[in-house]
Amino acid sequence: MRYELFYWPSIQGRGEFVRLALEQAGADYVDVARQSEGEETGEDVLIRWLEDDKIKRPPFAPPFLKAGKLIIGQTANILLFLGGRHNLAPKDEAGRLWAHQLQLTIADFVVEIHDVHHPLGANFYYEDQKPEARRRAADFLKERLPKFLGYFEDVLRSNGGRYMVGKKLSYVDLSMFQVIAGLRYAFPRAMARSKREYPLLDVLHDRVVALPRVSNYLSSKRRIPFNRQGIFRHYEELDTRLLRKTERK
Amino acid sequence: MRYELFYWPSIQGRGEFVRLALEQAGADYVDVARQSEGEETGEDVLIRWLEDDKIKRPPFAPPFLKAGKLIIGQTANILLFLGGRHNLAPKDEAGRLWAHQLQLTIADFVVEIHDVHHPLGANFYYEDQKPEARRRAADFLKERLPKFLGYFEDVLRSNGGRYMVGKKLSYVDLSMFQVIAGLRYAFPRAMARSKREYPLLDVLHDRVVALPRVSNYLSSKRRIPFNRQGIFRHYEELDTRLLRKTERK
Repeated sequence: MRYELFYWPSIQGRGEFVRLALEQAGADYVDVARQSEGEETGEDVLIRWLEDDKIKRPPFAPPFLKAGKLIIGQTANILLFLGGRHNLAPKDEAGRLWAHQLQLTIADFVVEIHDVHHPLGANFYYEDQKPEARRRAADFLKERLPKFLGYFEDVLRSNGGRYMVGKKLSYVDLSMFQVIAGLRYAFPRAMARSKREYPLLDVLHDRVVALPRVSNYLSSKRRIPFNRQGIFRHYEELDTRLLRKTERK
Repeated sequence: MRYELFYWPSIQGRGEFVRLALEQAGADYVDVARQSEGEETGEDVLIRWLEDDKIKRPPFAPPFLKAGKLIIGQTANILLFLGGRHNLAPKDEAGRLWAHQLQLTIADFVVEIHDVHHPLGANFYYEDQKPEARRRAADFLKERLPKFLGYFEDVLRSNGGRYMVGKKLSYVDLSMFQVIAGLRYAFPRAMARSKREYPLLDVLHDRVVALPRVSNYLSSKRRIPFNRQGIFRHYEELDTRLLRKTERK
């Protein structure tokens, strides 16, 4: 069975967490909206699906994954499904719930990362909320980013330092890589000391990059570059130097 | 086995989605932080748990549920767990994933509802972000609220109008009730026409209220009243009249 992934064709966005899992699983999939079908653009195809009244269990938004008759929406839910099928999550109930819990915490973090540049909502342009974005960015970099990354570093350390969950690679490791990579792109100055402050996450990032399938994917055209339409955006004015641990109150 | 729920003791917040499921399940549980233990307040107990280095799989934030040796965090994850044990979700994989997908969409909606009064982040007081909250509220009421409620109304309609998922009550119905009740509290003016625009959600709300166990819970002291510390807050200045469908562009 060939999976069909439905996501916006020009950004990594939330779809990227699913793409990484599919790639590492070596799954047979097609990134539907990135195929052109005659005169219809990929985006048209995606919107047609979103507006199709005949879908019995319609997703609210992309990404969603078609797996045979199933249509599964919500990033973390898709990974919960794929993790079980492709050996990318623990098999026991406790381990499965824990992996999913971490993924949902990553999802919360991703919302906050996005909202740094869109504090007033996604319906306003960044240019129409620049002063607000600056205030939110300062608070994010000072308080929220260290809180989340410190938490994930602790989780990784207490699990032995190699994997986020259990004794094998899981979708949580892939997602964690994506978050670190995205933060480095968006906030190079604030993340400059991250290697020292979050050394295990740093090594995890590099270990994921070095996985043959991931490495192959990242250097392919299937990997869309980071850009200013996605979750992780680099705006010089939002990227202030992060205080050292000892400088923080 | 007695469940232990850990959540802030003075607000409904995200914990309320779990409380409603536990109540409707008739589960044996204790709302830990609402018990006083000698000189330690409930909040102290909660914070002690959050800072306990010995917890092997620590939650990032409340709510979390202790079920024997398991400690489960993230609201939707807790409901995924409870749904399976207490007959509050479909048994088949497709149904389970669909219920969870809807719950995660409710979770997304809840973030947006919260951020109406805290667009710059939870670390600033509402009073320090009032103009920003007004801009976000206007967009939320005009665009986001109708989009989410319209989606849930459609889902309910296409499932026959009685339950959100399958042919029985699920945790999704309980959460949907909570969202409607919260929105009515926070935005009475904007929600004034909701009975006409979302008639099935309105009936669902009333049907959940009438469930004997829920009804008993809602009139007990265990149900914390809505207030201005929670997710759903009523600020006169944010509650503008919602445009009729025909008035919207």
